[in-house]
Amino acid sequence: MTKSKLTFWYDLASTYSYLSAMRVEALAEVEGVEVVWRPFLLGPIFVAQGWASSPFNLYPAKGAYMVRDIDRIASLRELPFVMPKVFPSNSLTAARVALVGAEDGWIAPFTRAVYAAQFGAGQDIADPAVLASLLDDIGQDAGRALARATQPAVKDRLKDNTEVAQSLGIFGAPSFTADDDELFWGDDRLEQAVAWATQA
Amino acid sequence: MTKSKLTFWYDLASTYSYLSAMRVEALAEVEGVEVVWRPFLLGPIFVAQGWASSPFNLYPAKGAYMVRDIDRIASLRELPFVMPKVFPSNSLTAARVALVGAEDGWIAPFTRAVYAAQFGAGQDIADPAVLASLLDDIGQDAGRALARATQPAVKDRLKDNTEVAQSLGIFGAPSFTADDDELFWGDDRLEQAVAWATQA
Repeated sequence: MTKSKLTFWYDLASTYSYLSAMRVEALAEVEGVEVVWRPFLLGPIFVAQGWASSPFNLYPAKGAYMVRDIDRIASLRELPFVMPKVFPSNSLTAARVALVGAEDGWIAPFTRAVYAAQFGAGQDIADPAVLASLLDDIGQDAGRALARATQPAVKDRLKDNTEVAQSLGIFGAPSFTADDDELFWGDDRLEQAVAWATQA
Repeated sequence: MTKSKLTFWYDLASTYSYLSAMRVEALAEVEGVEVVWRPFLLGPIFVAQGWASSPFNLYPAKGAYMVRDIDRIASLRELPFVMPKVFPSNSLTAARVALVGAEDGWIAPFTRAVYAAQFGAGQDIADPAVLASLLDDIGQDAGRALARATQPAVKDRLKDNTEVAQSLGIFGAPSFTADDDELFWGDDRLEQAVAWATQA
């Protein structure tokens, strides 16, 4: 029997995805579910919906609520939380590096490192020097990983992830798919998504 | 010591508010929290955000997901769920009748009856005959309640609820406020909101 899979769809600039990234693997492991990490870009999906920026910027009440909501949840989970100076960050390079990590088996620790730097410590993940330092921290060759992230095959993979996300009806992050195309949206649906995967 | 209070903010046409309306009182009671039922209108708040309709209509991927998401949750809670033919319903008269019920002490059963008719049985809650039948069902004088719902004082109370909701930063429904102004949004935050109320 093959192991049940849960696909975790995330944009590396997404605040609520930070909450899920820090717990998805531990939560899935308990249930015997394998996590497939699929970074994508929310930008093109937002643009297709007519939004030029994050809804948290376009709708100030929603943005203010999001910060307070995550503050409360992060505090319950004993996670640090701080908004970076620029939000949303440009997550393009970080997402491409993550896809190099998917090839090499370090996408999970790299993703967690990016979120922790950004939303735990307010660092600018659009800065390649910040990404290099995070790669160092997880024991990877930063120069080599950043160079590979510029290869056409990696760029295409990110485009493909974004297109597949959109075709699955994904409109925000984090999202989860189980049993191929059963879609769950939001950190608050993670338990339900894992349960669905175990029954698939 | 006065009893802790949780204010439940809802639009009678809101799908996710249906989920909360059917469980808020039982959940709060266990914790010794009193529920204050405050219907308001999402329409003016959506218009202020530049939306001419529900985001579930404006953003089809979001709308399709909402139906599936509520389907799954309603099924877990053994609640029927069906979308009415017209969505969102015009909830103006229903909200005014609910406010008459707030004066007389039957707002909770009336609210549940409206949601159950609409999202459990697909009935049109914009139709006064439907509201009259629901008032009958909960043992109220329908003619009298519908007539009182047209009084200026009742209309003003609904406008006031909507304005207060907006001033509290409310941008969707259901929302909950505890300890005066601590805001929680979404049926998935109800437990957290009740817990906050008990600690206030």
